[in-house]
Amino acid sequence: MIIVMKKGAEQKEIDDVTRWIESVGYRAHLSKGVERTIIGAVGDERGKVFLKSAEMMPGVEKVVPILQPYKLASRESREGDTIINVGNVAVGGPKFVVIAGPCAVETEEQLMESAYVVKKAGASMLRGGAFKPRTSPYSFQGLGEEGLKILARAREKTGLPVVTEVMSASDVELVESYVDVLQVGARNTQNFALLKGVGHSKKPVLLKRGMMTTIEELLMSAEYILASGNDRVMLCERGIRSFETATRNTLDLSAVPVLKEKTHLPVIVDPSHAVGQWRLVPPMAKAAVAAGADGLMIEVHPDPRHALSDGPQSLKPEKFYRLMDEIEEIASVVRKE
Amino acid sequence: MIIVMKKGAEQKEIDDVTRWIESVGYRAHLSKGVERTIIGAVGDERGKVFLKSAEMMPGVEKVVPILQPYKLASRESREGDTIINVGNVAVGGPKFVVIAGPCAVETEEQLMESAYVVKKAGASMLRGGAFKPRTSPYSFQGLGEEGLKILARAREKTGLPVVTEVMSASDVELVESYVDVLQVGARNTQNFALLKGVGHSKKPVLLKRGMMTTIEELLMSAEYILASGNDRVMLCERGIRSFETATRNTLDLSAVPVLKEKTHLPVIVDPSHAVGQWRLVPPMAKAAVAAGADGLMIEVHPDPRHALSDGPQSLKPEKFYRLMDEIEEIASVVRKE
Amino acid sequence: MIIVMKKGAEQKEIDDVTRWIESVGYRAHLSKGVERTIIGAVGDERGKVFLKSAEMMPGVEKVVPILQPYKLASRESREGDTIINVGNVAVGGPKFVVIAGPCAVETEEQLMESAYVVKKAGASMLRGGAFKPRTSPYSFQGLGEEGLKILARAREKTGLPVVTEVMSASDVELVESYVDVLQVGARNTQNFALLKGVGHSKKPVLLKRGMMTTIEELLMSAEYILASGNDRVMLCERGIRSFETATRNTLDLSAVPVLKEKTHLPVIVDPSHAVGQWRLVPPMAKAAVAAGADGLMIEVHPDPRHALSDGPQSLKPEKFYRLMDEIEEIASVVRKE
Amino acid sequence: MIIVMKKGAEQKEIDDVTRWIESVGYRAHLSKGVERTIIGAVGDERGKVFLKSAEMMPGVEKVVPILQPYKLASRESREGDTIINVGNVAVGGPKFVVIAGPCAVETEEQLMESAYVVKKAGASMLRGGAFKPRTSPYSFQGLGEEGLKILARAREKTGLPVVTEVMSASDVELVESYVDVLQVGARNTQNFALLKGVGHSKKPVLLKRGMMTTIEELLMSAEYILASGNDRVMLCERGIRSFETATRNTLDLSAVPVLKEKTHLPVIVDPSHAVGQWRLVPPMAKAAVAAGADGLMIEVHPDPRHALSDGPQSLKPEKFYRLMDEIEEIASVVRKE
Repeated sequence: MIIVMKKGAEQKEIDDVTRWIESVGYRAHLSKGVERTIIGAVGDERGKVFLKSAEMMPGVEKVVPILQPYKLASRESREGDTIINVGNVAVGGPKFVVIAGPCAVETEEQLMESAYVVKKAGASMLRGGAFKPRTSPYSFQGLGEEGLKILARAREKTGLPVVTEVMSASDVELVESYVDVLQVGARNTQNFALLKGVGHSKKPVLLKRGMMTTIEELLMSAEYILASGNDRVMLCERGIRSFETATRNTLDLSAVPVLKEKTHLPVIVDPSHAVGQWRLVPPMAKAAVAAGADGLMIEVHPDPRHALSDGPQSLKPEKFYRLMDEIEEIASVVRKE
Repeated sequence: MIIVMKKGAEQKEIDDVTRWIESVGYRAHLSKGVERTIIGAVGDERGKVFLKSAEMMPGVEKVVPILQPYKLASRESREGDTIINVGNVAVGGPKFVVIAGPCAVETEEQLMESAYVVKKAGASMLRGGAFKPRTSPYSFQGLGEEGLKILARAREKTGLPVVTEVMSASDVELVESYVDVLQVGARNTQNFALLKGVGHSKKPVLLKRGMMTTIEELLMSAEYILASGNDRVMLCERGIRSFETATRNTLDLSAVPVLKEKTHLPVIVDPSHAVGQWRLVPPMAKAAVAAGADGLMIEVHPDPRHALSDGPQSLKPEKFYRLMDEIEEIASVVRKE
Repeated sequence: MIIVMKKGAEQKEIDDVTRWIESVGYRAHLSKGVERTIIGAVGDERGKVFLKSAEMMPGVEKVVPILQPYKLASRESREGDTIINVGNVAVGGPKFVVIAGPCAVETEEQLMESAYVVKKAGASMLRGGAFKPRTSPYSFQGLGEEGLKILARAREKTGLPVVTEVMSASDVELVESYVDVLQVGARNTQNFALLKGVGHSKKPVLLKRGMMTTIEELLMSAEYILASGNDRVMLCERGIRSFETATRNTLDLSAVPVLKEKTHLPVIVDPSHAVGQWRLVPPMAKAAVAAGADGLMIEVHPDPRHALSDGPQSLKPEKFYRLMDEIEEIASVVRKE
Repeated sequence: MIIVMKKGAEQKEIDDVTRWIESVGYRAHLSKGVERTIIGAVGDERGKVFLKSAEMMPGVEKVVPILQPYKLASRESREGDTIINVGNVAVGGPKFVVIAGPCAVETEEQLMESAYVVKKAGASMLRGGAFKPRTSPYSFQGLGEEGLKILARAREKTGLPVVTEVMSASDVELVESYVDVLQVGARNTQNFALLKGVGHSKKPVLLKRGMMTTIEELLMSAEYILASGNDRVMLCERGIRSFETATRNTLDLSAVPVLKEKTHLPVIVDPSHAVGQWRLVPPMAKAAVAAGADGLMIEVHPDPRHALSDGPQSLKPEKFYRLMDEIEEIASVVRKE
């Protein structure tokens, strides 16, 4: 960490900061420039948020952190890319992965039909929500355990691994007994109790970026899971909140190459929740492949017009089949190396 | 809800939409303008998110919701302002309320010292975190139940009601056994499991607006608590995330008069977390009073430089005493009516 | 436009609104629902911002505009896509277009070297700034007319049409006498005096989206140019400002399919300014092709480390050659239809 | 400026960076920590954006600027606060200043009526737009020179200095011949040609912050004017763009104390444009006083319902009179020191 003193800071102020740095266990390294004195606090600054307190000391202009605050999630901590095996699907490896299915499990019939569409299209995993985080308490909240059972039956019949959201640490045990991947949703990216909960699970986790979560915060949330003992985390960009209202959220595709630089974890993109309108899903799905994502998560519904949740952004089967062909073609251009 | 058809939409498309509206239980009301046909879907649209699915039907340009989606939280549902009694403190009434204390309970000594400062300054309630939501898994996570016990002892000694954060539905019972007000933090504003949890508590709830939460979404989160049976909810503006980085977040003070128009619930402002630097806390605290808030939540620490959490934004006792005087003066101007 | 009355609005209030609508030249259309009365104001609402004033009348809850506010820029106003011919380059047609070159014209040698790289790579147009909009008054402000002359000579030697920014209406005449396409920069998207200026030019305009401009506002700015008589406008997405700081701005690629739906004008993407780091330019360039853009604008510099402007985001020649191959491959997948 | 090398950066990479720093005219200062080597580039970095190019050199993790990029606008450059005299009004001194009037000059009658209201209320200056920056080319664009003449006559009759917007450098001479203060609007905050234009004027400038302008960028824009020779600049916060749509923009009142710390220039707040609804103007105006602003700019219209521009946010005379009383009371509390 670097502490920049104000222009004209007095010697006493500089000494005070130096002493304070040493009193909290760091080594001070002074550097006097023409206009400013700069004091380095040498030592491991991660998790030591209190170092920011230097900012309130007289004569201090600002405090600049130098190290990135995550360890286990960083590229530095691990050679190569993490590949996560889910059944016979390898996420983060050379093969591009598509997870698809309806927003919510509504009925056995609806999910089975979706599952066959997903399988026929050549996708790798089935998604479907049993516990639904809904803005309104009056909206459909999901089928709960009954939904998990339907998902498990769909896996049996199709062989597709299933992904579903878990909303509370106290549900982790129940949910992991039925499904293959635990999803942490965008509204829970910084629900630290839940992060610790899935961190103690044996099942891989799909961690969604929140609408207002920075890339660094997303990696810190992954760090919670990794530090709790679960090293199988996939990250998922699903759109951030900006001033633009033409789309539901703003899909931040630059996050894909940024994450690939900073972390060894696989990166998935969910264009459906980001854009909120099915017409925009295919172009953004293709863009995600071209940007270097390891996989996609796409909402598909046999009858979107009567979906209980997120109908407007769900693709009909025929649109999805066609998109899968294009995804494959672009993946073959981008991932050939 | 209103469905705007595209220019030149065909009669068949209009008929289709009309039939669909009726098939999902609403009454259709047609209005043909010069350029556009507009179809109203008459009925209670709240919680009926699936109505948005009309957007994917051929010939439809857009779907415009008309009713606000919350009921119990709205001004329409209740005459007058809700006043919440916590011990002998009335939040939302004529008297301006100040909640103060350190970010985290660190030791008995630190909390007691803080509590006496808070009391001496004339504030109404004591705050202090026992369970701390921290971005980094390596940061101090709070004292847990031991912190709750310290808070309870501080209440005994000073008579001040205490407010503390609860981070998980499974902790509600524990936390409410020790404190007077349950706080839901900014990262949990849309943690629906937790909202239901505090909704079943008998203790009042201080619901913070998330960094990414719109005013409408905040009211929907309040609606979750109200709909679960707990009608004692105070809302708290604590800064939203914007592109500006000069302050930690952007304190959205306009939210105060907007909320006062839309809801009967009391509105508190937390300037400390919003700005992140103690120097900016007094002007923003005073501005919050002038904007019409019912109360403030301010971080005060006897030794901010050695605070384990949020030192840079904590006021020292002497600064806090002075601020309390100014708050009182402005409150007497603004709240005299 | 639709005026939604408050629940329980009085008949007198409804009558007042109705009379007011008629007094300002519109026809009122009443629709009484169970909870709300809704009044349509029938007529052309475009440019009639004053209609929003209804919002301040007693009993009115909100005013909802129905028509999109632009005409000439909208898909409704024109069949098919606009194709803009610049020399022998057709922007908006089947062939994908790449505009490349350095951020600023620095010297004749630097620009010529860049121009040959651009040509060798197979790009279609050369870019280079002679008038540079710089945040700091102490930064290099461009070579001015001398820069324009260098650009004109580069065109002569390579046959590549040239694009350059014009910063003030009073410079339009000078700039258009040297170059082929007038660029309006991101900080001038709503500089209405400049928009009218380029609207009176005979040269095509490349209109960049501002960091703070919504898609609708971008189309309104295009409308200014179209309404002034210049119907050759290309739109350019170059990143918007969000809370994320890992990239300079957030490239909003969803804007591409949204714009293709709403307007007949061609859409170009500038990934260089959006991301601000050369490593991220190739993945985002490829993503833009896959998202359906008509072209790209990319910064290339023979010696980025010594560039006077935007060095960190400029590609070296060898990186650019390789990227051009990948762009072509993806374009051949996406644009084959 | 500080260059942070990657963990494990090689000696050759460190040497390269050191040599490059010296080749561009700075002195390098090396500091080796346990995990990272940090290289300071000592010298005046302002305006030297090209220093950022170090970011692309092998082994470099990031480049951190240390000095603030503005000089003349900074507190360091000048003792005390700048007070700007406009007629007999002193902006930035002990007396709180209110500028009021209609959004646009519509007719002589409308402006005169407004001017008398403004004067009667005890405000210090009159505002009114003659050149109106409108999102739509079809909206009322202002009366132009005729509007300026009306403003000049209002000043003669009331003695109030007048403020009006100038939209283009080529209009500066015309506008300054009629009015007392030149306003640069929120869409032109980074219109550098215009900033230079008003920088050469003898009249004071009211510089509005753009909807997506950071505080640092606002100060850089002020720096353009100051560096061009005009040292009479007032800054104006008028709301920034955020994700919240309940208000037109988000009034960033924290910008007031932040600006007061960083610059000696006076700070005005315009709540009317920020919130967009007249009901919210009084609370936010009072909050601005309490936050420490030097003045307010408020829209007042004798007949808002028929205003040609911004009717919904304009106060009626009687509301304005009452607000002026409250402003005075709060100012007397806050500014007594």
